[in-house]
Amino acid sequence: MKKALVLSSGGVDSTTCLAMAVSEYGSSNVIALSVIYGQKHSKETEAAKKVADYYHVKFIEIDLTAVFADSNCSLLSHSTEEIPEESYDSQLKKTDGKPVSTYVPFRNGLFLSCAASIALSEGCSEVWYGAHMDDAAGSAYPDCSQAFADAMNTAIWEGSGRQVKLTAPFIASNKAGIVKKGLELGVPYELTWSCYEGGDRPCGKCGTCIDRRKAFEANGVEDPAMALYRD
Amino acid sequence: MKKALVLSSGGVDSTTCLAMAVSEYGSSNVIALSVIYGQKHSKETEAAKKVADYYHVKFIEIDLTAVFADSNCSLLSHSTEEIPEESYDSQLKKTDGKPVSTYVPFRNGLFLSCAASIALSEGCSEVWYGAHMDDAAGSAYPDCSQAFADAMNTAIWEGSGRQVKLTAPFIASNKAGIVKKGLELGVPYELTWSCYEGGDRPCGKCGTCIDRRKAFEANGVEDPAMALYRD
Repeated sequence: MKKALVLSSGGVDSTTCLAMAVSEYGSSNVIALSVIYGQKHSKETEAAKKVADYYHVKFIEIDLTAVFADSNCSLLSHSTEEIPEESYDSQLKKTDGKPVSTYVPFRNGLFLSCAASIALSEGCSEVWYGAHMDDAAGSAYPDCSQAFADAMNTAIWEGSGRQVKLTAPFIASNKAGIVKKGLELGVPYELTWSCYEGGDRPCGKCGTCIDRRKAFEANGVEDPAMALYRD
Repeated sequence: MKKALVLSSGGVDSTTCLAMAVSEYGSSNVIALSVIYGQKHSKETEAAKKVADYYHVKFIEIDLTAVFADSNCSLLSHSTEEIPEESYDSQLKKTDGKPVSTYVPFRNGLFLSCAASIALSEGCSEVWYGAHMDDAAGSAYPDCSQAFADAMNTAIWEGSGRQVKLTAPFIASNKAGIVKKGLELGVPYELTWSCYEGGDRPCGKCGTCIDRRKAFEANGVEDPAMALYRD
């Protein structure tokens, strides 16, 4: 039986990705990898741990914060930038073709390489990650694009001595399609966390909160995580 | 003026690569990046620091040891494997097409991704690294191959939003060609360290000691680092 290592951030996309891997290979053949990179809060990694526990998969946490010591990305705890309270589309009108301010420099490249290294050590022949076309649109997050995923797949395949492949099941889907798949699989979305802010409840205003709300609305269901905070 | 970030291990290849970058862009536009990954000794990183000081370039050191916690690669301090005392050619006859035991899982992929992240934070548009065809031969180190470097270049270019390129000046050279170039540039090879063991002097028996000796012999000169230990 194959083994898969899944990049898990505790959000909607990677949790659905983990659910698919578990559905395909079974809990004992799946490992969830969560990377700490200096986020402003620990809600994401706490959610990733809860999700891994729910699915009874091995959970590995790695701290790569040092790599981003000199980055001023607005997601990082040491950044002087505020997290924008608007959609990615609105932000992209002001970035002159550059990624949005919440783009962490080559984050997915670093995370996937880290995952490939660990996959080799753990005997996994696949690395899964939940990038999708909404995030790549307009170059908001270039490390979510099909061109990046294809190149990274080749780099991991060749650089690992043809032992590890990259699987990006949602690279041609949008977030609504991911939620649709997740609802079919019974993903426990109430355990996930997407918001860039680390408040008591999701802010509802940042790019990822907006995207998440739209994805559930498109499926005609209430977001189970938001239901927890209903007044 | 462009800025370049150079992966620097303190060995012959990366030090020559650094010398080329400094020769092209000047000391103030070059940064040396050294990665600690759990090596059995600190000779390499000490050499990388000395070389950076010699060239008056900014020096960044990152510790990624945690990524290799579960690897049994023979270069790592926690490994139960001995470092083989033979050439890569001899070792490859026993590996059944797999990388040699001193292959650190997807190390160059991880290091290059880390370098791309830091390059974006530091305003560098190029990442340089000193991989060469001798190390890739027979799949000893698949993360030194042309196919890997090409794919990684595309991944870094696309994943960075087309802001960073990979430069691998020796990808079609052998180690003797690198030393030839370095001798022309006056590289201070007496400051470098290649040996996989961390003794008082290079062991002369491991794969990299053998390769290094041959590269200087091919150029008809004594290795300045070995001259230091002449009886």
